[in-house]
Amino acid sequence: MKSIFIRFILLFVFLIVSVIPKLYAEDGYRLWLRYDLISDAARLQEYKGQISGVVMQGQSPTLAAASRELTLGLTGLLGAKIPVVATPNNGSIIAGTPKNSAFIKSLGLEGVLSKSGTEGYIILSKKVNNQNYLVIAANEDIGVLYGAFHFLKLLQTQQSLQNVNMSSAPKIKNRILNHWDNLDRTVERGYAGFSLWDWHKLPDYIDQRYIDYARANASIGINGTVLTNVNANALVLTEEYLVKVAALANTFRPYGLKVYLTARFSAPIEIGGLKTADPLDPQVKAWWQKKTNEIYRHIPDFGGFLVKANSEGQPGPQNYGRNHADGANMLADAVAPHNGIVMWRAFVYDDKVPDDRAKQAYNEFKPLDGTFRKNVLVQVKNGPIDFQPREPFHPLFGAMPKTPLMMEFQITQEYLGFATHLVYLATMFKETLAADTYAKGKNSTVAKVVDGTLDKHELNAMAGVANIGNDRNWTGHPFGQSNWYAYGRLAWNHEYTPEQIADEWVKMTFTNQPDFVKPAKDMMLASREITVNYMTPLGLHHIMGWSHHYGPGPWIKDKLRADWTSVYYHKADANGIGFDRTKTGSNALGQYFPPVQKLYGNLKKCPENSLLWFHHVSWNHKLKSGRTLWEELCTKYYAGVDSVAWMQQTWNQQAGKIDEERFEQVKSLLNMQHKEATIWRNSCVLYFQTFSKMPIPAGLEQPDKPLAYYENLKYSLVPGN
Amino acid sequence: MKSIFIRFILLFVFLIVSVIPKLYAEDGYRLWLRYDLISDAARLQEYKGQISGVVMQGQSPTLAAASRELTLGLTGLLGAKIPVVATPNNGSIIAGTPKNSAFIKSLGLEGVLSKSGTEGYIILSKKVNNQNYLVIAANEDIGVLYGAFHFLKLLQTQQSLQNVNMSSAPKIKNRILNHWDNLDRTVERGYAGFSLWDWHKLPDYIDQRYIDYARANASIGINGTVLTNVNANALVLTEEYLVKVAALANTFRPYGLKVYLTARFSAPIEIGGLKTADPLDPQVKAWWQKKTNEIYRHIPDFGGFLVKANSEGQPGPQNYGRNHADGANMLADAVAPHNGIVMWRAFVYDDKVPDDRAKQAYNEFKPLDGTFRKNVLVQVKNGPIDFQPREPFHPLFGAMPKTPLMMEFQITQEYLGFATHLVYLATMFKETLAADTYAKGKNSTVAKVVDGTLDKHELNAMAGVANIGNDRNWTGHPFGQSNWYAYGRLAWNHEYTPEQIADEWVKMTFTNQPDFVKPAKDMMLASREITVNYMTPLGLHHIMGWSHHYGPGPWIKDKLRADWTSVYYHKADANGIGFDRTKTGSNALGQYFPPVQKLYGNLKKCPENSLLWFHHVSWNHKLKSGRTLWEELCTKYYAGVDSVAWMQQTWNQQAGKIDEERFEQVKSLLNMQHKEATIWRNSCVLYFQTFSKMPIPAGLEQPDKPLAYYENLKYSLVPGN
Repeated sequence: MKSIFIRFILLFVFLIVSVIPKLYAEDGYRLWLRYDLISDAARLQEYKGQISGVVMQGQSPTLAAASRELTLGLTGLLGAKIPVVATPNNGSIIAGTPKNSAFIKSLGLEGVLSKSGTEGYIILSKKVNNQNYLVIAANEDIGVLYGAFHFLKLLQTQQSLQNVNMSSAPKIKNRILNHWDNLDRTVERGYAGFSLWDWHKLPDYIDQRYIDYARANASIGINGTVLTNVNANALVLTEEYLVKVAALANTFRPYGLKVYLTARFSAPIEIGGLKTADPLDPQVKAWWQKKTNEIYRHIPDFGGFLVKANSEGQPGPQNYGRNHADGANMLADAVAPHNGIVMWRAFVYDDKVPDDRAKQAYNEFKPLDGTFRKNVLVQVKNGPIDFQPREPFHPLFGAMPKTPLMMEFQITQEYLGFATHLVYLATMFKETLAADTYAKGKNSTVAKVVDGTLDKHELNAMAGVANIGNDRNWTGHPFGQSNWYAYGRLAWNHEYTPEQIADEWVKMTFTNQPDFVKPAKDMMLASREITVNYMTPLGLHHIMGWSHHYGPGPWIKDKLRADWTSVYYHKADANGIGFDRTKTGSNALGQYFPPVQKLYGNLKKCPENSLLWFHHVSWNHKLKSGRTLWEELCTKYYAGVDSVAWMQQTWNQQAGKIDEERFEQVKSLLNMQHKEATIWRNSCVLYFQTFSKMPIPAGLEQPDKPLAYYENLKYSLVPGN
Repeated sequence: MKSIFIRFILLFVFLIVSVIPKLYAEDGYRLWLRYDLISDAARLQEYKGQISGVVMQGQSPTLAAASRELTLGLTGLLGAKIPVVATPNNGSIIAGTPKNSAFIKSLGLEGVLSKSGTEGYIILSKKVNNQNYLVIAANEDIGVLYGAFHFLKLLQTQQSLQNVNMSSAPKIKNRILNHWDNLDRTVERGYAGFSLWDWHKLPDYIDQRYIDYARANASIGINGTVLTNVNANALVLTEEYLVKVAALANTFRPYGLKVYLTARFSAPIEIGGLKTADPLDPQVKAWWQKKTNEIYRHIPDFGGFLVKANSEGQPGPQNYGRNHADGANMLADAVAPHNGIVMWRAFVYDDKVPDDRAKQAYNEFKPLDGTFRKNVLVQVKNGPIDFQPREPFHPLFGAMPKTPLMMEFQITQEYLGFATHLVYLATMFKETLAADTYAKGKNSTVAKVVDGTLDKHELNAMAGVANIGNDRNWTGHPFGQSNWYAYGRLAWNHEYTPEQIADEWVKMTFTNQPDFVKPAKDMMLASREITVNYMTPLGLHHIMGWSHHYGPGPWIKDKLRADWTSVYYHKADANGIGFDRTKTGSNALGQYFPPVQKLYGNLKKCPENSLLWFHHVSWNHKLKSGRTLWEELCTKYYAGVDSVAWMQQTWNQQAGKIDEERFEQVKSLLNMQHKEATIWRNSCVLYFQTFSKMPIPAGLEQPDKPLAYYENLKYSLVPGN
């Protein structure tokens, strides 16, 4: 029998390895939720000895989802059917809550569960009456589902289950994706195809993709999704669409994923037939109250509204001489009876061009601190301009202690090469979260502002602008999946490191083979700085192509608004380059707390990666490297391109270690990235040279084409625009 | 050993059946090219005894594709690795041409291959020196690839290979898909997501989907694809896009798939900087010649141009006082040196509203017969209006003997419920192809006009407007795949029956299980008539919703053009309903040959399914059923809806016989179809009742809502518009 068994295992492994991958391509659809046979034979045997079945006590759609996921996952990972069983026995995975599982109640977990909140969970191995059990316990059903995903991750990353004993609970309550999806399925700044939401076929047709989207989000703890673009269309608030939104909400609900919508401020006029949208007008208030009640009739657990108002042409309270708090509070009152929230974006700009756009959000919002309703969050982008490859943290963090400020990260790579560049964003997210505002002295990090601990806010949230579309692999670039994943993980716990997140993602998504995991992680962890180098080194920003934001455009000038041009931001001239935001300039730096001002205000001490953000610096200024600014700028641009070449070499060495399909995809995309990085480098170096009048340092190859070539490169019909 | 082997087989079957399908969902991506383990154990054993390896003598990208497909397919179908071997031995599949395979040359197949042309193939079992071989032979490499797909189909449909001896060759030379895809990836009249062509990432990034698209087309013999919308954008003819087109052409080439583009007639002005696009202007001619040479530099085997001119606002030769032949010939001269062709669409209408739009194409094109260059085809829609659920054949077929007329079918369901209705179109295509024009006496079928045999044209072609988008299953509705498939099969050989095409498609796409195949085929074969019944019975046409063409709109009137309204076509009044196209009316019928005129002109003899197309008929007119026209109209509408209910019941009985994912998809879509069919029925019956003033016949349930309800149904942002 033994020999037959071994033969069977060998044959099965052979078949899995040789036949199945060819029949079912690794098209990336499964994301990190790949449940293929454990490749480490010893570990596999260990797991098989430890796991015999799943016991799920209690009934709810969420527990049913957890049960389905566990059996699906374990059956794939162990290569054998793992059944759902009614009674615990040796090797059972017992999942549930003390409320609905007598077994779990009997384990005396109250102490540890008291720290798990409504969404946390614990996983532990437990011996009872000489029987070995694996326990996934939580206070609420959603915790059980989250725990189930974590349990599967332990196997996917081939960790020992011997004496497992861990717990996890989120630091932030509302962990939200923002979809900039239009109702016609185009996606603003979306580069992975078109919107997942097939409005035309809703509510009748529930695409399997909706369910898999909810699974993926639940697996990383994302618990909210704003379905529609911040540049909003009021149509989604009409009955015709609310039944469709409700169908999505019903599909997502078992996975703990709440639905939110963007509220177009002028909706009372556009779909309500009113003459005004003035937030203090009683009819307007009544209209929103009635509309909100209608929404909650369709979606009883509707999350609330996200609003972009008085920004980039969107209507808002200022159209009626009111302020942002007036607008936000009016909506907050409408959703409050239903426990909804309002997320009011701080990304604003005036009709008038300010002396420095970086200052505007602070100027408009700081004075409003303390005037917002309790169920309003102000949603602040990570930096003061707009999702550049590198920005200092936004000065509003720490500046509005009486208002819960939520973070808005951008997962979609609007300014980072779209879906064609490999850029792992966890390092960037983490850089902002770890930044110290000094609002209440040292160690007043942005993370503590956002998670509410600094100013004792119960309500807290994080948003990520999604990079998800209907491409077969969801994100266009296979490594784009890592940014969705990393965002979710950091929203759950901002103390995780980019390295640890990359490690588990690579293992789950590709393979546990160490000679792949290491180089893949090396590439990921280096990738963001590489991109900064070939795009916007030393604190440069907003020098991208006009309108579509693809490729370089340092020469952009003479547009409708000065603050839509590149020259407004880099201010290159014969003397030097950079935006003086110190006291001698716009003094945007004055919006930060004194220790920050002191560090960045001093040309000598200012971290060089933000130098040109805060200072206009002479071409001949000497940097720490001993090189002049001009030499350093060139060196960085060239290093960026060279590092992409390094990524290409590194990747090419991975041939054969993973499936051919994704290997080839990444290979092609890295080739594109190298081509485009070279265009960035040559464009910027040649353009800035027209000011510095200095030669490209010796040893660096001259660009093979003149500046005019790069200025005339045409990108028609660029997506996401 | 034997028992281990049996155990292995059993375990493997168990694993395939129980584990794999859950890990890899049947998302429809594989289309009919599903190579899963043969379910009939006896047949599987038979095949395993017959097939030991693949011998592919000769080298070319096309033969390499054939070799890949055979090993991929056989490995999956037989559940064991089928190797490529160098030397023929017992059980070898030997594929190749006499030119590159000594073995095949030795078989003495010249006789049968002489009838195979450049694309045909033969498949036969052959015993040589006591060794058994399976031979796939052709004159050219592409025939070998087509033969390989056919060979795999024999296994997929579990047919015996014992004494196999068959040959196949296409009746039509150019079998083409027309993509109405815009460069921004929206698809005009496309309902399966967005365009496959990701122009932004081309030419660098070759999506696996492009290869699978080419494979799917090759498997059904489609050998040409027009990448762009007939409502054309000249941008695709610029260098920026030609390199992208070339990348697609390079990807498709091994699969025998040629690339074509739509030519915007005003391109010389829009991208050429000329002041005119007059086809007789020497500068315009020179511009097109130069542009064409440029295209062929990028794509040496470029197929040619498809042109929509002077129709629905598109520019054309008439803008300059020239006729269609002047325009077509100018382009034909440009592509002729490169062996390209021009497909000039006959779907035209004037700026002026004609007395009957059905007559216009004939009126404009018939006088031009004999004036087109040899490399021009006139592309004629199946019927004289526009892809209605039922139209009589187009009167141009048979009317232009000196000009090759190609067929334009619509595979995308613009007027047939989009991708939400199950409508198998082979019966519709076949109805037109089998129609007798009587151009040269009895049996002068449309098929014979199109395949060139009636008028001895060497050049011949068929086009199908694609229903393909970037939805995971390509066509939105799982059964939409059958229409792509059926179009390809009928373009290859119009003598195939809809039943036989459905049979193989169902087996390849779902299962060979007879108790599924039969009901699935029953549904498919009935579906088109069912749709006609609930949409446009008895010859009604063009009564759909305004602009988006979704849902009913018999009440549409008072639009910019009368021939864009519904009332123009149904002409319902107190006396009756229908468009009199006999001599007492528009006499569109006069465009047909006398026997056709005689049949359709006679109210008594006119086939009732086209009655209201040709006649204005009194509400009280008695039909063959004994019912009055009004009663019959109602009866048909109700029968249509009832038949959808029958499809639902039939489908629901298939639960468990196929994968859950596609079962549920089709179930949801049939529910939508029933809902929408009911809306069609109630809208039309209630609306026409306002003219007939007669009650809905006894026994038929009254619509539950008044006419106004249906008139006010809103469909916002309908796709494909």
